[in-house]
Amino acid sequence: MEKKFDIELIRGGVCAPEGFLAAGVHCGIRRNRSKKDLALIYSAAPCTAAAVFTRNRVKGAPLEVTKAHIAKGRMHAVICNSGIANTCNAGGAEIAEKTCEMVGAALRIPAASVAVASTGVIGQPLDLAPIERGIPELVGNLVPDCTSAAEAIMTTDTVSKQVAVQFTLGGKRCVIGGIAKGSGMIHPDMATMLVFLTTDAAISAKMLKKALKGDVASTFNMLSVDGDTSTNDMVLVLANGEAGNPEITEEGDDFETFMCALNTVNIRLCRMLAGDGEGATKLLECVTEGADTLADARKAAKAVICSSLVKAAMFGADANWGRVLCAMGYSKAKFAPDKVDVVFRSKAGEIVVCKDGAAVDFSEDDAKKILLEDDIVIAVKMGDGKYSATAWGCDLSYDYVKINGDYRT
Amino acid sequence: MEKKFDIELIRGGVCAPEGFLAAGVHCGIRRNRSKKDLALIYSAAPCTAAAVFTRNRVKGAPLEVTKAHIAKGRMHAVICNSGIANTCNAGGAEIAEKTCEMVGAALRIPAASVAVASTGVIGQPLDLAPIERGIPELVGNLVPDCTSAAEAIMTTDTVSKQVAVQFTLGGKRCVIGGIAKGSGMIHPDMATMLVFLTTDAAISAKMLKKALKGDVASTFNMLSVDGDTSTNDMVLVLANGEAGNPEITEEGDDFETFMCALNTVNIRLCRMLAGDGEGATKLLECVTEGADTLADARKAAKAVICSSLVKAAMFGADANWGRVLCAMGYSKAKFAPDKVDVVFRSKAGEIVVCKDGAAVDFSEDDAKKILLEDDIVIAVKMGDGKYSATAWGCDLSYDYVKINGDYRT
Repeated sequence: MEKKFDIELIRGGVCAPEGFLAAGVHCGIRRNRSKKDLALIYSAAPCTAAAVFTRNRVKGAPLEVTKAHIAKGRMHAVICNSGIANTCNAGGAEIAEKTCEMVGAALRIPAASVAVASTGVIGQPLDLAPIERGIPELVGNLVPDCTSAAEAIMTTDTVSKQVAVQFTLGGKRCVIGGIAKGSGMIHPDMATMLVFLTTDAAISAKMLKKALKGDVASTFNMLSVDGDTSTNDMVLVLANGEAGNPEITEEGDDFETFMCALNTVNIRLCRMLAGDGEGATKLLECVTEGADTLADARKAAKAVICSSLVKAAMFGADANWGRVLCAMGYSKAKFAPDKVDVVFRSKAGEIVVCKDGAAVDFSEDDAKKILLEDDIVIAVKMGDGKYSATAWGCDLSYDYVKINGDYRT
Repeated sequence: MEKKFDIELIRGGVCAPEGFLAAGVHCGIRRNRSKKDLALIYSAAPCTAAAVFTRNRVKGAPLEVTKAHIAKGRMHAVICNSGIANTCNAGGAEIAEKTCEMVGAALRIPAASVAVASTGVIGQPLDLAPIERGIPELVGNLVPDCTSAAEAIMTTDTVSKQVAVQFTLGGKRCVIGGIAKGSGMIHPDMATMLVFLTTDAAISAKMLKKALKGDVASTFNMLSVDGDTSTNDMVLVLANGEAGNPEITEEGDDFETFMCALNTVNIRLCRMLAGDGEGATKLLECVTEGADTLADARKAAKAVICSSLVKAAMFGADANWGRVLCAMGYSKAKFAPDKVDVVFRSKAGEIVVCKDGAAVDFSEDDAKKILLEDDIVIAVKMGDGKYSATAWGCDLSYDYVKINGDYRT
């Protein structure tokens, strides 16, 4: 977007917008009592809602239930457990539906106004008893602070992830906030890991859906930790209108401002998710430019950050740029290899490692110094076209193997 | 193939067929003097030849030269260096062409009857001087044994790979032999790492090409170590006709027998390549059956063996079958998740871990015992269809990261 928008980062997450409360508790789904495993987000005012879901053919039961509930109308709450994915098990849909009913009863709202999500191990039964015990505690703990909720949705994440921005619509201060979880099995296809967004902006369900669908193509769909698209990916946004702005019901300046604010939040969440990828020691960002089409720019950028060989080289701070060209080459993006330039960049500086598709003389010591930083940009000029794209990922480390060699036990 | 063919495994590789000689030497491309880096395969009798190459848009210079030479007619020799890929560097095509000229002069054959291949680091200059010194030594060392040649094409391979089979065509004993290298950057697309095949069977260039193209779809294209399609993949077959069988010029019984022998050789090479994948501690074989189409069976099998999460779970001997379903789900294969059964199998036994898409009770101890073996089959029933496929890969270990974190130094 060329236009300038006045978007300001502020503290907080899904409770930064007016009228949203949240809570997170340990209810007993996980054995480790110090690990919260049940989260609730709640707006007393009814919300318009939109969501995108994984395109994995094997889908978690909660996704189907949430999809049906959003189709029915206004939403009030999101309930999410970690530890067990409620996927590939018997009766998963009934368990997800029953969870919404229990939340509805406790908050005195319709069960169909509750979205439900789960994350954790696939193929294990999800017991309702701890959830039933946990819900009253969650409702009693609701506060305008999402710290506990952000923690309760974590699995192998090492840090909780929240972000919020403020902006103005029709003279009214509006806020979009979000929390996210995700560390492995991250390679979203039209959606991502669990991301819950809230806003107090007034926006119709139709425009909210349009904004979300339009944005994920350049944010969560350009993110990969390990190439594995999860069965339970979901990005959900609730808008309760408490900011009092004129409701957004069509395209125009307000919608553009909203899109830009949403994009700001989602890019920050992508960077947080990639930087906290399983075992990651570095955040990788591949920026491609000069492509002939947006699709080519995206394919090339995503292939680079998905390449196990590029990822391992970055872990070792090895300026092995041939692997960048190799990944672009099999990405199905169209480009002329002899027009490609590659630059590695970090806060320690930048270095040109490939010019016109061939090696240039560069100092391995300087390159090493740049690549030893923990936030690396791989900048690629693909040609003379006008399209660019950004993809986010992380390095491949010993710890990725360790974490995933025995995740269940 | 349902028909029974009489194909017998024998000792040796590319020199097992009549009339082929080979040699491998250290010429100085690699600094480590104990590592051979230049290989030659030679047939005094002219050969029909066929090859398939990587579909990576970034292609090694030797591939273009070899492609042009094969198009010109009969072939006599293959020269291959390891250490440097001769890709993304200045003047790569001239270096490859000049190498063929030097081999041609030394063997008194046309330069255009020589195929050339390179494997190693991308983007570094390839010096002709060591190759020029090495060629006379190679020619002087030619023997009917490919042990040295198989060693000289290795990069991060831990073992050299050769295989041969014998069979009968028109009453004549025929042999197909092969050598292969490849350990990382293995995810072939219509070709694979370097595989050189020879046969003394008489077969026209047209039918040889048909046999090779038909076979790689179910062999090398179903192999992946790390999802990275190399810039230098090549499978090349030379047929010198020394067996004296009636030349195969059309489809029929002889062609079928030849295809079956070729398939036997290539499957063995695939298993060797996968089992020696970078850092691999286990060979993984995913066998899908009951698919509605061959494409669905192949997509699902390949997604499973490509999944970093499945690979890491196998490294940890963790029966995390949910990751198998997850990978199938994003593979774009069509199937009903609630019809899927998954079985883990090894020489220690077999265990059903998923039935009709849901968890079954199984002994984690028994599963662990099966998965601690180094040759694991993941057998998946996708439904009631009649198509099946097999894909080969390996586990993801600490050593993969170690090897690729600093490959160049």
